[in-house]
Amino acid sequence: MAKRNSSSTPRMSGARSRRKAVYPGTFDPFTYGHRDIVLRALQLFPDVTVAVLENPQKSPVFSLEERKAIIRETTLGLNGVEVDSFDGLLVDYVRQKGIYVVIRGIRAVSDFDYEFQMALMNRRHYEAIETVFLMPAEAYTYLSSRLVREIALLGGDVSGLVSPMAERLLKERANRMKASS
Amino acid sequence: MAKRNSSSTPRMSGARSRRKAVYPGTFDPFTYGHRDIVLRALQLFPDVTVAVLENPQKSPVFSLEERKAIIRETTLGLNGVEVDSFDGLLVDYVRQKGIYVVIRGIRAVSDFDYEFQMALMNRRHYEAIETVFLMPAEAYTYLSSRLVREIALLGGDVSGLVSPMAERLLKERANRMKASS
Amino acid sequence: MAKRNSSSTPRMSGARSRRKAVYPGTFDPFTYGHRDIVLRALQLFPDVTVAVLENPQKSPVFSLEERKAIIRETTLGLNGVEVDSFDGLLVDYVRQKGIYVVIRGIRAVSDFDYEFQMALMNRRHYEAIETVFLMPAEAYTYLSSRLVREIALLGGDVSGLVSPMAERLLKERANRMKASS
Amino acid sequence: MAKRNSSSTPRMSGARSRRKAVYPGTFDPFTYGHRDIVLRALQLFPDVTVAVLENPQKSPVFSLEERKAIIRETTLGLNGVEVDSFDGLLVDYVRQKGIYVVIRGIRAVSDFDYEFQMALMNRRHYEAIETVFLMPAEAYTYLSSRLVREIALLGGDVSGLVSPMAERLLKERANRMKASS
Amino acid sequence: MAKRNSSSTPRMSGARSRRKAVYPGTFDPFTYGHRDIVLRALQLFPDVTVAVLENPQKSPVFSLEERKAIIRETTLGLNGVEVDSFDGLLVDYVRQKGIYVVIRGIRAVSDFDYEFQMALMNRRHYEAIETVFLMPAEAYTYLSSRLVREIALLGGDVSGLVSPMAERLLKERANRMKASS
Amino acid sequence: MAKRNSSSTPRMSGARSRRKAVYPGTFDPFTYGHRDIVLRALQLFPDVTVAVLENPQKSPVFSLEERKAIIRETTLGLNGVEVDSFDGLLVDYVRQKGIYVVIRGIRAVSDFDYEFQMALMNRRHYEAIETVFLMPAEAYTYLSSRLVREIALLGGDVSGLVSPMAERLLKERANRMKASS
Repeated sequence: MAKRNSSSTPRMSGARSRRKAVYPGTFDPFTYGHRDIVLRALQLFPDVTVAVLENPQKSPVFSLEERKAIIRETTLGLNGVEVDSFDGLLVDYVRQKGIYVVIRGIRAVSDFDYEFQMALMNRRHYEAIETVFLMPAEAYTYLSSRLVREIALLGGDVSGLVSPMAERLLKERANRMKASS
Repeated sequence: MAKRNSSSTPRMSGARSRRKAVYPGTFDPFTYGHRDIVLRALQLFPDVTVAVLENPQKSPVFSLEERKAIIRETTLGLNGVEVDSFDGLLVDYVRQKGIYVVIRGIRAVSDFDYEFQMALMNRRHYEAIETVFLMPAEAYTYLSSRLVREIALLGGDVSGLVSPMAERLLKERANRMKASS
Repeated sequence: MAKRNSSSTPRMSGARSRRKAVYPGTFDPFTYGHRDIVLRALQLFPDVTVAVLENPQKSPVFSLEERKAIIRETTLGLNGVEVDSFDGLLVDYVRQKGIYVVIRGIRAVSDFDYEFQMALMNRRHYEAIETVFLMPAEAYTYLSSRLVREIALLGGDVSGLVSPMAERLLKERANRMKASS
Repeated sequence: MAKRNSSSTPRMSGARSRRKAVYPGTFDPFTYGHRDIVLRALQLFPDVTVAVLENPQKSPVFSLEERKAIIRETTLGLNGVEVDSFDGLLVDYVRQKGIYVVIRGIRAVSDFDYEFQMALMNRRHYEAIETVFLMPAEAYTYLSSRLVREIALLGGDVSGLVSPMAERLLKERANRMKASS
Repeated sequence: MAKRNSSSTPRMSGARSRRKAVYPGTFDPFTYGHRDIVLRALQLFPDVTVAVLENPQKSPVFSLEERKAIIRETTLGLNGVEVDSFDGLLVDYVRQKGIYVVIRGIRAVSDFDYEFQMALMNRRHYEAIETVFLMPAEAYTYLSSRLVREIALLGGDVSGLVSPMAERLLKERANRMKASS
Repeated sequence: MAKRNSSSTPRMSGARSRRKAVYPGTFDPFTYGHRDIVLRALQLFPDVTVAVLENPQKSPVFSLEERKAIIRETTLGLNGVEVDSFDGLLVDYVRQKGIYVVIRGIRAVSDFDYEFQMALMNRRHYEAIETVFLMPAEAYTYLSSRLVREIALLGGDVSGLVSPMAERLLKERANRMKASS
């Protein structure tokens, strides 16, 4: 099978490595919409690494360790999922891991331009990389980390959108903000 | 591995069937942009069926047999590619073939709404189906079957955009139209 | 109350007429997504007229009488709904009926430009007209008359998307097309 | 009339409450484009509450009291307009006020995705809520609070875009910034 | 000046030829929005050729001669405007005329993808070609030939949108359609 | 020739001033995509001023002097290019320079709404201004200053995207950030 692929295209790769995928993001926090994408990715690739971009410049609400803990809780019981983090360029991370497939959820037109820009830039740096866009379940079309944060910090209920740990941590942040204001 | 997937999600499927994908379309005609998507799909799935929708209502420029012949020529030498056709709903076709993965190329924002509408409708009819969106090489971003037809029928040069057979057949059509006008 | 409105804006209108709304469309056929918009409109305006644009140039699949019968069946039991038709410009129709409010469902970005173009053009012809855009339930976001027709004519199941009469008529059309091909 | 509505749909509400609407926003500052939307809303609903979201996280240029004063000045003489503010979730605010109708102006495609995301999320939290999208007059299509702030802070003229009080306050801010730089 | 340009870029061209521009389209019919673009183009380029694409496949409502006559009437008194037509590819037409600059009006997001696709394809066939996008006056943002045709054929008033001749011809077509239906 | 233009349109301007254009931006930093737009603009207008908006509110990564030095390096050898800066409104700057033509590159749908908003607002402040939208070469479609900054600050390679000086300065910034974190 390896022979098949390598003879037909200029992008040489063993079939095995194509069975691994990375799902990168800031995940601040990871939502049930992200979980839905992981479930879909697992149907296509046996090994899916959820890779948290550290991204301290964007000053995320959650620390790297909190974000990873939330992902672990939210994906509990899903075989084939690994949680990891990286600091730097995605292309460097995937090249070093020997992974070629990058998963991205795409929900709305407003995601589109940025996602394409990133995917093309990644491809220019690392030709073998392939970005696979998956569509979340309809119920998650309008769910984003930003919306969850905004609702929770205004005192709203986000159960059903994120895991219990994320919900609890968001409530703590909201209370702390109230106390300090 | 089959156990892994089936335990983690409600969508039961053997791992093997997830290695096949179908790439459906009218392909009137198949272009080098379509070929680029096939090459990318082959890196992810060992078996890719290019499935031509008969679609006589849309009165395609090329007959079903011509469209299939052009695809065969354009994908010559690519292992793992099968050319087929179907008449009716895509979901019925893929269900009967035991395929769960549908490939779609996505090039521009204007593709987006329609592609999502189709993907969601397909998912509603057949929950196991998963549409995988791939991005063609930058050079093919603006290439479409419609554009190729328009250029060729106005007497323009479409070499480098479609296979020699498609080019020759388009030239014949253009001459016939000129003669009859 | 009439005094209030008329004093505050240049658009003179009695409060009563603002309680009527027209929901125009080709409705070829009327779907459960359209019904959802009617339900929402009824919460805002006690009288909602579903007005079918005859539009013979677009050669609709259903006759005007069939389209009206389907709407009547689909809106059965909803108080305040009237079914009507018109031939010509919407602005002429609403002006003659003494209605100022036009309802439009808006589902996706691709609807947007056309809807705005129409709404602005209508406003230019008849300043008092106000187009009110409502958003259907999430489940109907991707439902359109065109999609229903395409699925049904390819032999697909459209129950749950349109009324039983529309379903039956679509099946007849599909069988007739098959027989004649 | 109340009977009519309540019998026909699952969303129970007295007809009276449907005659009130809330127009929420940050309004930093309220512009003549916002005023245009209020005028249109008043044609549909006798009572329109302009509700300022406090939103201290976004660090608005104007204080809550300034923003409310500007709205009062700009809507002077319009019967049926009330100016209010809220802190927290819109759904909590409207539920407590017994209001079901939310007004939003929609000007351009770039507004679209975010507006829909909010409207759907609000609907999920409070099923009876209905977001009504209105289109401003053509002349205001390209007017936004952000643009007004940018122009004024660079020393530009914003008369004809906002009320005299907003203009004066913006000039003060611009001078203060110049002095401190 | 010719020296300056030719030394700095790979696209050799005399400065003189860059002072001519072509404004291509189907113009079925030419509207006051198109006229607005011509006025703007004339400020940049002393010679502007309005070039009608014959396009018999699209079965335009107006004959080529009618479309050219309408353009002549609508641009009467504008110095520097020439009216011409072409059959075939735009790139062949402009190359033969020795023109490098193509004018296109761009009004809304929905125009965008198609315009870019065409501009890139033209550039691929003829590297020296440069498409210049101009924005019409706000009042014409929502004006298109299609909208004018639709309104006129339904009996609506299109004065102020197209020239008297176009108005008269559209009225004739509308009456003819009515008589034959 | 001046006579021709001034007689045909309400926007009076000498032909000479129409031969100058300004290309404004924050240019933080100027990229090879910006250079591509300058090259295209030079084909249309003999004198092109690249005008850097100071914009200290946006706290650019590069100082005004650095940004101007990078532009000078990147446009070295291009005749007809001047590098300048301005503080305040673009319309005030171009009016004082006696320039009527503003160049903007337009790459993707997401640019569109903002660019139109700015262009219309500028036109309202200064009727004679004309914004000319040019499309960069395909290879630069997805290149932006923000992307360059993000890649460089994460340690990625940006050669081929910006000039050597910009590359060196970005590397310095990245090292400084690493050291301080």
